[in-house]
Amino acid sequence: MSEKQSIMDIDTVSLDDENAQIVIIDQTLLPYETKTIRLTTQNQIWDAIYTLQVRGAPAIGVTAGFGLYLAAREIGAHAKTFEEFYPEFVKAKDYLDSSRPTAVNLSWALNMLDKVALKNKDKTVPEIVEALHKEAVRIQEEDIWACHKLGEYGLTLVKPGDGLLTHCNAGKLAATRYGMATAPMYLGQEKGYNFHVYCDETRPVLQGARLTAKELMDSGIDTTVICDNMSSSLMKEGKVQAVFVGCDRVAANGDTANKIGTSVVAIVAKHYGVPMYIMAPTSTIDMNTKTGDQIKIEQRKPEEVTEMWYKKRMAPEGVKVYNPAFDVTDHDLITAIVTEYGIARPPYTESLKKIMEIKAKAMQEQGED
Amino acid sequence: MSEKQSIMDIDTVSLDDENAQIVIIDQTLLPYETKTIRLTTQNQIWDAIYTLQVRGAPAIGVTAGFGLYLAAREIGAHAKTFEEFYPEFVKAKDYLDSSRPTAVNLSWALNMLDKVALKNKDKTVPEIVEALHKEAVRIQEEDIWACHKLGEYGLTLVKPGDGLLTHCNAGKLAATRYGMATAPMYLGQEKGYNFHVYCDETRPVLQGARLTAKELMDSGIDTTVICDNMSSSLMKEGKVQAVFVGCDRVAANGDTANKIGTSVVAIVAKHYGVPMYIMAPTSTIDMNTKTGDQIKIEQRKPEEVTEMWYKKRMAPEGVKVYNPAFDVTDHDLITAIVTEYGIARPPYTESLKKIMEIKAKAMQEQGED
Repeated sequence: MSEKQSIMDIDTVSLDDENAQIVIIDQTLLPYETKTIRLTTQNQIWDAIYTLQVRGAPAIGVTAGFGLYLAAREIGAHAKTFEEFYPEFVKAKDYLDSSRPTAVNLSWALNMLDKVALKNKDKTVPEIVEALHKEAVRIQEEDIWACHKLGEYGLTLVKPGDGLLTHCNAGKLAATRYGMATAPMYLGQEKGYNFHVYCDETRPVLQGARLTAKELMDSGIDTTVICDNMSSSLMKEGKVQAVFVGCDRVAANGDTANKIGTSVVAIVAKHYGVPMYIMAPTSTIDMNTKTGDQIKIEQRKPEEVTEMWYKKRMAPEGVKVYNPAFDVTDHDLITAIVTEYGIARPPYTESLKKIMEIKAKAMQEQGED
Repeated sequence: MSEKQSIMDIDTVSLDDENAQIVIIDQTLLPYETKTIRLTTQNQIWDAIYTLQVRGAPAIGVTAGFGLYLAAREIGAHAKTFEEFYPEFVKAKDYLDSSRPTAVNLSWALNMLDKVALKNKDKTVPEIVEALHKEAVRIQEEDIWACHKLGEYGLTLVKPGDGLLTHCNAGKLAATRYGMATAPMYLGQEKGYNFHVYCDETRPVLQGARLTAKELMDSGIDTTVICDNMSSSLMKEGKVQAVFVGCDRVAANGDTANKIGTSVVAIVAKHYGVPMYIMAPTSTIDMNTKTGDQIKIEQRKPEEVTEMWYKKRMAPEGVKVYNPAFDVTDHDLITAIVTEYGIARPPYTESLKKIMEIKAKAMQEQGED
């Protein structure tokens, strides 16, 4: 696959059902090389998630869904009854679940398939496998739908020609299409909005410089990379009209966990009166987490800061490193939280509850169809 | 010189008058190798400043002072009268001045020597050269004295065991001893204050990770490197009691230009109620610059962000980069500006004026001695 091909023309994750394979963009090679790889065995799928060849909560969820369906298909080739089928299915589920324990959407997607298996336990094994196939495809379709809705809502918050800042990669590489933070950018691009998008490079792992800048440029958007410490200058010059970021978990009060540095952007944005928008598919809103204080933050290895990516060590041998992967942005720094069921504004304890009620009602109506 | 030797035992810049050489630590090799080099010719001195082998406004000023003195000594070997001496001296001065036109202290130090030459024009050439020697040494001594005073004042603002954050390198490597932001840290270390110092790595050129972390560790201080986007997490956890940074220029209203990212730290510190201290030798206070808006910010090359230090390119080919070297921190984000003549607090238009009056008075008294 040529390096010249636009990354926007290739699905982040797709199912090749005929060949019983998952096809993903190998994100560890970006931005140097755009290459898809095919995952056949459960080991390959587990490795792809663990080594970040596929990353981003929604994309991991979709990959896990396809992966568990493929496992079910393999088990279905020899299991004759639900009793023979199910223990092996659970084993496959637990195996995939162990690939990245902190990613919420991973276990969420696996549990969705588990529910479908249990719901269909009185059917034949081929029927169960087909129901799982449908569910895995539905998870991907729902992700695409939700991201598109985020884009539609997000677009109502900005105007043509605006400068937009984003942090880390909550783009199409993190989801299966559109992305979360990038969704209004891509929808705006289709409508000729001519946004100027600034990407925080996002130390230490540089998802902004490597991934977000790559996908935005490939889609023809005016793209500028900045170091994470340049947002203040940029906003002071009036170049940013809105900040859009994704999220890993939104607490019931609106406190939002996202890639380390998000709260810095939020504080700076508030200082300059620039609106800060969290792009949150409802799957990331956790009403059982009351505030951000209850969100556990992963501490990652020092080498990411001191030597990764570099020709030589970047900091003295033995220096201590503080290297949290995420931080929590307080709700009072957030202008709005955009979901696929509408835009929540402060006070979030009320508005998020309302969004979740709208969602529950929509799902109930869907179930009633 | 062994890599194990503490960088604190070696002068950043020193004059070897016997051999007519300047000895500097080659900062381009840090933190991998601690090595001093000897500068003999005017070309070597110019190159050392231009290529950042010696960097930091005060250290550049001291180097330039020694450099122009050595030029005067060479000229004095053949010039018999002031009329023969002075045109060649001015030529040498202009040459050194062209090495880094934005560094304030460079032209400041050269002008100090020029004044001394003119003041002594009725003396013999050897007497003029000796007066220049004294002035160059005095510039270094004044820098050491000013930094020590900054440390004494700074130490009154903190207490033993405090967590301190700094950005970029306003350390002893940027000055000739103590440094500016680091001065209270080193003085505190002598008194057993047991500070915990956090260094912003300071993208794109990583002066914090490479230089500040190195000198702090070598002096035995508990040192932790963070990426620039981690300050919010750290302050939220209550780990930072004060921020100390240096400055490139302080305007009359207290607006302060310093390494890009300083204003981000200041905004975040204000949000968490952490005091933000600017460590400012009075040579950096420019009463003729009314506000920060009048300070011209240098834009540096994109490659610093996209590929320097890396094994491979860090961002897509052709991506635009916003890469200012400095930013301006508004005076309303600054808790105090610490100078060698005292601590200025808001409103700065009054307190800085007062500091400059104290300085003028002190210098007058010195002159009257």
